[in-house]
Amino acid sequence: MTLIKTFVEGDEIIGFYLLKSAEAKQTNATPPKDYMDLVLADKSGEIQTKFWDASSRDKETFIAPMIVKVKGIVQIYRDKPQFKIMQIRPAADYDHQDMTDFIRSAPVQPVDLLYTIKQTVESIADKEIRSIVHACVSRVEDKLMHYPAAKSMHHAFYAGLAYHIVRMLELGEFVAKQRPFLNLDLIRAGIILHDIAKTDELTAEIGIVKEYSFTGKLLGHLSMAANWVTEAAISLGLAVDSEKVVILHHMILSHHNLGEWGSPVQPQIPEAVALHYIDQLDAKLQAVEDAVSTMPDTEEWTAPVRILENKQIYRSKGLGKST
Amino acid sequence: MTLIKTFVEGDEIIGFYLLKSAEAKQTNATPPKDYMDLVLADKSGEIQTKFWDASSRDKETFIAPMIVKVKGIVQIYRDKPQFKIMQIRPAADYDHQDMTDFIRSAPVQPVDLLYTIKQTVESIADKEIRSIVHACVSRVEDKLMHYPAAKSMHHAFYAGLAYHIVRMLELGEFVAKQRPFLNLDLIRAGIILHDIAKTDELTAEIGIVKEYSFTGKLLGHLSMAANWVTEAAISLGLAVDSEKVVILHHMILSHHNLGEWGSPVQPQIPEAVALHYIDQLDAKLQAVEDAVSTMPDTEEWTAPVRILENKQIYRSKGLGKST
Amino acid sequence: MTLIKTFVEGDEIIGFYLLKSAEAKQTNATPPKDYMDLVLADKSGEIQTKFWDASSRDKETFIAPMIVKVKGIVQIYRDKPQFKIMQIRPAADYDHQDMTDFIRSAPVQPVDLLYTIKQTVESIADKEIRSIVHACVSRVEDKLMHYPAAKSMHHAFYAGLAYHIVRMLELGEFVAKQRPFLNLDLIRAGIILHDIAKTDELTAEIGIVKEYSFTGKLLGHLSMAANWVTEAAISLGLAVDSEKVVILHHMILSHHNLGEWGSPVQPQIPEAVALHYIDQLDAKLQAVEDAVSTMPDTEEWTAPVRILENKQIYRSKGLGKST
Amino acid sequence: MTLIKTFVEGDEIIGFYLLKSAEAKQTNATPPKDYMDLVLADKSGEIQTKFWDASSRDKETFIAPMIVKVKGIVQIYRDKPQFKIMQIRPAADYDHQDMTDFIRSAPVQPVDLLYTIKQTVESIADKEIRSIVHACVSRVEDKLMHYPAAKSMHHAFYAGLAYHIVRMLELGEFVAKQRPFLNLDLIRAGIILHDIAKTDELTAEIGIVKEYSFTGKLLGHLSMAANWVTEAAISLGLAVDSEKVVILHHMILSHHNLGEWGSPVQPQIPEAVALHYIDQLDAKLQAVEDAVSTMPDTEEWTAPVRILENKQIYRSKGLGKST
Amino acid sequence: MTLIKTFVEGDEIIGFYLLKSAEAKQTNATPPKDYMDLVLADKSGEIQTKFWDASSRDKETFIAPMIVKVKGIVQIYRDKPQFKIMQIRPAADYDHQDMTDFIRSAPVQPVDLLYTIKQTVESIADKEIRSIVHACVSRVEDKLMHYPAAKSMHHAFYAGLAYHIVRMLELGEFVAKQRPFLNLDLIRAGIILHDIAKTDELTAEIGIVKEYSFTGKLLGHLSMAANWVTEAAISLGLAVDSEKVVILHHMILSHHNLGEWGSPVQPQIPEAVALHYIDQLDAKLQAVEDAVSTMPDTEEWTAPVRILENKQIYRSKGLGKST
Amino acid sequence: MTLIKTFVEGDEIIGFYLLKSAEAKQTNATPPKDYMDLVLADKSGEIQTKFWDASSRDKETFIAPMIVKVKGIVQIYRDKPQFKIMQIRPAADYDHQDMTDFIRSAPVQPVDLLYTIKQTVESIADKEIRSIVHACVSRVEDKLMHYPAAKSMHHAFYAGLAYHIVRMLELGEFVAKQRPFLNLDLIRAGIILHDIAKTDELTAEIGIVKEYSFTGKLLGHLSMAANWVTEAAISLGLAVDSEKVVILHHMILSHHNLGEWGSPVQPQIPEAVALHYIDQLDAKLQAVEDAVSTMPDTEEWTAPVRILENKQIYRSKGLGKST
Repeated sequence: MTLIKTFVEGDEIIGFYLLKSAEAKQTNATPPKDYMDLVLADKSGEIQTKFWDASSRDKETFIAPMIVKVKGIVQIYRDKPQFKIMQIRPAADYDHQDMTDFIRSAPVQPVDLLYTIKQTVESIADKEIRSIVHACVSRVEDKLMHYPAAKSMHHAFYAGLAYHIVRMLELGEFVAKQRPFLNLDLIRAGIILHDIAKTDELTAEIGIVKEYSFTGKLLGHLSMAANWVTEAAISLGLAVDSEKVVILHHMILSHHNLGEWGSPVQPQIPEAVALHYIDQLDAKLQAVEDAVSTMPDTEEWTAPVRILENKQIYRSKGLGKST
Repeated sequence: MTLIKTFVEGDEIIGFYLLKSAEAKQTNATPPKDYMDLVLADKSGEIQTKFWDASSRDKETFIAPMIVKVKGIVQIYRDKPQFKIMQIRPAADYDHQDMTDFIRSAPVQPVDLLYTIKQTVESIADKEIRSIVHACVSRVEDKLMHYPAAKSMHHAFYAGLAYHIVRMLELGEFVAKQRPFLNLDLIRAGIILHDIAKTDELTAEIGIVKEYSFTGKLLGHLSMAANWVTEAAISLGLAVDSEKVVILHHMILSHHNLGEWGSPVQPQIPEAVALHYIDQLDAKLQAVEDAVSTMPDTEEWTAPVRILENKQIYRSKGLGKST
Repeated sequence: MTLIKTFVEGDEIIGFYLLKSAEAKQTNATPPKDYMDLVLADKSGEIQTKFWDASSRDKETFIAPMIVKVKGIVQIYRDKPQFKIMQIRPAADYDHQDMTDFIRSAPVQPVDLLYTIKQTVESIADKEIRSIVHACVSRVEDKLMHYPAAKSMHHAFYAGLAYHIVRMLELGEFVAKQRPFLNLDLIRAGIILHDIAKTDELTAEIGIVKEYSFTGKLLGHLSMAANWVTEAAISLGLAVDSEKVVILHHMILSHHNLGEWGSPVQPQIPEAVALHYIDQLDAKLQAVEDAVSTMPDTEEWTAPVRILENKQIYRSKGLGKST
Repeated sequence: MTLIKTFVEGDEIIGFYLLKSAEAKQTNATPPKDYMDLVLADKSGEIQTKFWDASSRDKETFIAPMIVKVKGIVQIYRDKPQFKIMQIRPAADYDHQDMTDFIRSAPVQPVDLLYTIKQTVESIADKEIRSIVHACVSRVEDKLMHYPAAKSMHHAFYAGLAYHIVRMLELGEFVAKQRPFLNLDLIRAGIILHDIAKTDELTAEIGIVKEYSFTGKLLGHLSMAANWVTEAAISLGLAVDSEKVVILHHMILSHHNLGEWGSPVQPQIPEAVALHYIDQLDAKLQAVEDAVSTMPDTEEWTAPVRILENKQIYRSKGLGKST
Repeated sequence: MTLIKTFVEGDEIIGFYLLKSAEAKQTNATPPKDYMDLVLADKSGEIQTKFWDASSRDKETFIAPMIVKVKGIVQIYRDKPQFKIMQIRPAADYDHQDMTDFIRSAPVQPVDLLYTIKQTVESIADKEIRSIVHACVSRVEDKLMHYPAAKSMHHAFYAGLAYHIVRMLELGEFVAKQRPFLNLDLIRAGIILHDIAKTDELTAEIGIVKEYSFTGKLLGHLSMAANWVTEAAISLGLAVDSEKVVILHHMILSHHNLGEWGSPVQPQIPEAVALHYIDQLDAKLQAVEDAVSTMPDTEEWTAPVRILENKQIYRSKGLGKST
Repeated sequence: MTLIKTFVEGDEIIGFYLLKSAEAKQTNATPPKDYMDLVLADKSGEIQTKFWDASSRDKETFIAPMIVKVKGIVQIYRDKPQFKIMQIRPAADYDHQDMTDFIRSAPVQPVDLLYTIKQTVESIADKEIRSIVHACVSRVEDKLMHYPAAKSMHHAFYAGLAYHIVRMLELGEFVAKQRPFLNLDLIRAGIILHDIAKTDELTAEIGIVKEYSFTGKLLGHLSMAANWVTEAAISLGLAVDSEKVVILHHMILSHHNLGEWGSPVQPQIPEAVALHYIDQLDAKLQAVEDAVSTMPDTEEWTAPVRILENKQIYRSKGLGKST
């Protein structure tokens, strides 16, 4: 199967791809004609796709997400590749296609990510902190198997949230080794809890965010996760205003660092400072990696990266990576 | 008793005043000598005070807050009035002085303020909302009898918080009458809850804030009040993620309107918008009234008002208030 | 007549509507074809409308604003309702349609609003202030009968400006009762004058702003209203630098509160502070009410509201308004 | 007479100087003793001065501004020169000292500055513009003879305002020659009017600003000058909303360029753009020149310059000025 | 030849114009059809142009920039003029058209601009500064003959960069005469060097910027010019950390004044302050002049000017320029 | 020797301490008396110190930095500990005191830090990058043995700069292992070069910054380090505009990320993004560690930390660090 990332203008393509989004449209012609705007995707990237002459039946048939078999041609439209469909049909059982083969996903198996997270929870020495974190993770184990970490900013792929957590845990352990004055229990708890309520703030399927939930819009994942900690504390019989619970609340609420980024308080314990900057380091580098790894092989500059002030990133061909 | 607001340079004063703060100091002389920096206050205002030649015993005797009898002279130091003590002693039982006669306090009796607040709670039609608000008010009834609404910004006086709530409730009822599409239950609940956790965010005595509490620093009164709602909901058997609870959370969390002012989410229901602007109107006007009513009679411009961009306010003598 | 707010996809509609805007367009087809982009409106809302196959004559016939009779179908285009015209003709005399039946307008009759404003002017106790306000209102009585308060932000409907003033007057009286230290004459004068020059800053017809005037662009309604006060003072023989005139200037010029919002000075008298926050409260709540009352019955979230940080507002179906 | 700028630590100085400010103080000693904080000045700069052992009579005698004869010693206090008085007396008639010999003033005679300004007014070709500018200048001819342009920012010296205007007029003529599409009448009028109301916004004596006036605080010099233009237009029988008057208003109101710098509107005619940037160029360079010319000869860096982001300016000794 | 600036709706035009850009497009029709979006230009302005029915051969023929002969009609599309091509062919040798007749260019001959710049270099008294500036100018003499000063902001025309430099030099000489404390050598050097690396930051042809270069994106013209000075100093045997070299670096690096405008340091020598404000004055006025001189004769307001806060500029018909 | 951090009010102390700063002062008494404001320090912290009755000879004797033997008493002044000297003398040879025993310094020996840095330079695979980095390090090897990384923000101690580099190198290696698409040569080069010019931007002695240098003020360490790279490239015969040199420049210039933080360009290669966030993580955590480790044992909250939005950091006694 030709990877989308390697599509070149003029290629005639036949193959299976993920129909990631599908929208029925009408031309401005008189009378207007029906067509569909599709996005086809595979692990390597995605491509805007025009399906002219779509019938009413087509509109009912092609509902994202699904696997489709397509035949078509790669064109260039406004300097960007576009795919023009000549034939399209849904994948059938006898095609033996598996959706997870077509989506970008964390480079580590979700089951392994979840295992790491759960092991880390058990390694928390403080019994009360451990119990609270355990309770919060238990609420959303299934969603941690597939949720992305964001709509488009960074880690916007299958199991991206769990992957983000695990990478941050690695960094957290390393930093705590560099700086023994940090409390590793808090570092671990903070990292696992900081974005965990994204699983309720957003609705997502196969690693793609659909929209913000009602609660997500009105409260945001910081306050939502703080609520989960309160609920866990109460059900465990811990005082909501005990130092440990307050500190867990504080780490969650302060991890965006500034009011204009959504944190009602700023980091005021060492581990909250660590949490914010570990989060930044991992999120920004992943955004870079996402942009670099999905750009066409022929390019030297990525598309603008939104969480990096909309800057484009340059990837040297000559310099490459050192050995 | 001469009111502090009417002190004029050169006056010799004898009378009872509230010792609002007392700090032991040393001069830079060689060898340094002991003295005390005091703040004397009454209902009309306060004045910086120098107590030269304070003995070790004086330092142990004069601990704020207490009532003292003083004799001394009004001087001007760096354009501001300053009081120089010649004699000072603590008020004794036979002086029959009552501390509440000396402090600025809400122009309505605390018991009446609390009564209004509690009546308003009972008037909330929705049983679940009423129960949650009731539970939160019950936690802090005693503190509502005397807490100020802030350290210095506005309503920084005895029972200032309850007074702020009651005034906002009046405004809220009026606005809801102007705009019947607003849900009065939510308006009432939002007004009563919005600053209620200031009673735990701050420590205060006789209407004067001492400092921020541990929880106050790490969480802030918005997130603290949200926690109280969660606790109340759980103990009442209500789902934390039910629409009503989420909306109460939302109103509390959004009432500072913008991230840079401490709100992690922005108002997104009509009543939350109303709550924020009613709060602004009442707080800013009270700050003006506080500044105008405590300025010396001889002045036309108040001291800079911090929550009004540090602007001074002009009070016309000639124009006065219309009849 | 079916209200636009209740249009449902697939409905075939016949009826009279206000043609609020009409633009001649060409398709991108080869050769391009003519069509018209119309906006149809009634009191309940408005809808984007496509008029394919518009002839040259049609382009000359359909000029907004006018009443038209249309037949057509409700469609959904990019998640939003769109109306597709099949037949259209101008309303004729024998149709007995009245334009004011089709436009959103203040819920109070313009004549009553103007009466209230004029009565309030007469109730100003100070003769000089009253005369100045009287002179300014007299300049634009006719426009106060129909001008909106803004292009789109808030009160963007027939007599919206007068309605905004009257509502603010109600609030102002209430606040002045709460806080007797405020000068009610100034409150009244400030409210009536603050936006009065919008009648010259903008050009408007049937409650719809067309554009900013030359003077409006170069000076803005704050400085324009200040000029009116100067003109009135001079013609009344009052000194332009007398305290009263300066204070009226100050209230007008400072009512946007901050430089970045267009005020060259910040509020520095109590009544100017009150004016700004009363204006905010009324404008923001009206923006909410406008958004909520014109959203389709099937929605729970309004369109983004520009003066509320572009936030959408949520209107609970279940919770409704309390009784 | 030794210039203050050349004072060196340890110097014993006898001479006449301007007493620029005088403040009675008390030491913190017990009992506190009286002394005076003086500022002595001459054309070359100024110096903080301590007058220990000042008697009650001294306090009544030494009121700024006046010329005094002093004997004392130059000391260094916190890295800055300070003068310690041993003897001081007011200058007497027989001393034949003239205050204007001691103050910093524009390097051009005030009478010549005013002559240039008035000649420029007469050179304005458009009769109506000329008349308005003439009327505004006539109001304040006497003040233009001595007012500074600001409290401390730039041109804070005797006749600094007129000097600023004249320098800007030179620049304006030059720029209008470079760019003939500019209307020279408007350039001239805008430059003369832009800061003219500073003469009423501030109260000043011998080139030193005392304070902001009542009207200055409540309106600011932009709106005040706009009022003057309105008054002039009315008394000349010109329509306040005629294009010319509106444009003069616009140039004055927009000359601070941005809302956060006090302009309610932004420059929108070519000459208003020119006015703002000519003003900037002249004001910033004068601030630099003020700082450089009053710094002690031994320094390489000036004190921080407030209107240059509080940066210090470096003055090379070696590089000097080219020939 | 009819100037584009004077095109009126409905005109049928035949003539030679510069094809400034050419983009192949497809309609949304089914099947989509090919057409081209062209921009035609002459000295007076430019116009959006539709070339329907463009063949594959047309797409290969019409590559910007080139001179074409066109026949077509002026239309109005979305309130803006648009040109619809009926016939088009490339200019041939026998048409005797010269591209420089069609492009906007500096009103002074490039050779004269360059001569002025080079003469100014030679007039720098300090031998070391002169040599460094000489070396930097020598690198790019050819590009100074035609480079614009920016992509679209200001001086975006043939030889615009050299014209900007020469105009600033005129201003610089004038200001240095007004303020003799300024070092004219530094003024001259700073003006010539400040934007000189734009010749490498941007790639440009016939006065039109194509794109930012690799080095331009990664370093920017300030740091690039600083590098040139370093290179020149080294090759001339001057110490990179000598006062003169540091000061030249400083002037270049600080000329955008603030960090958010791209300067890593703020102006801290008098000549750097002068350089920034001279640059501002010239750039902003040129932006105004560009907007005014290319707007259609029928308009009173220009298009929004990006570097003037996107404000439109008003050009009075009646007032005109004074004589 | 009693550690300063453990001083308790009322303690009488005899011991050797570092005299970190010494300033001669005069009291306000009449006549004023001489005294000295000293700062005494050891590894654990520092304390404000009053030396009353200092003689002229004392002022000449006690010049910071030096080791002194003191006898005195710990007092509390304005809530902060203050030391009052009774006896003081310089340490003599026979006291066998070593200044490095008294200063805060990196927890790793400078020689080891330098060794690590130099080894890392040699491990850079790319010959040209290695040579450039080598050349830059060679310029300042001696200063790397003792320079702090900043005046007060973070790593403000002996060899703090080298320690910051080494810690960042550890993080860089770890991150490059997590994300193999990063070029480790560039990570290493960027980390070593990013702050290296601080050794010339600041003047420092025994780990304490005295002031900014002339070049430091006019250029800043980013542009200075870029110059060093240019110099190195030229002396190595490498083209200044080659991709490698441009990228090294880019990493140095962009490492403050935003214009308002001093970077003229923003990170646009993956390794520049990594560099910025690794720098942030290390600097912010070190600032926390500095604050926590030097606060008195009796406190729970540190002093405000400037680079953490001036927030105080809370250090739990009970929670401690986990095991």
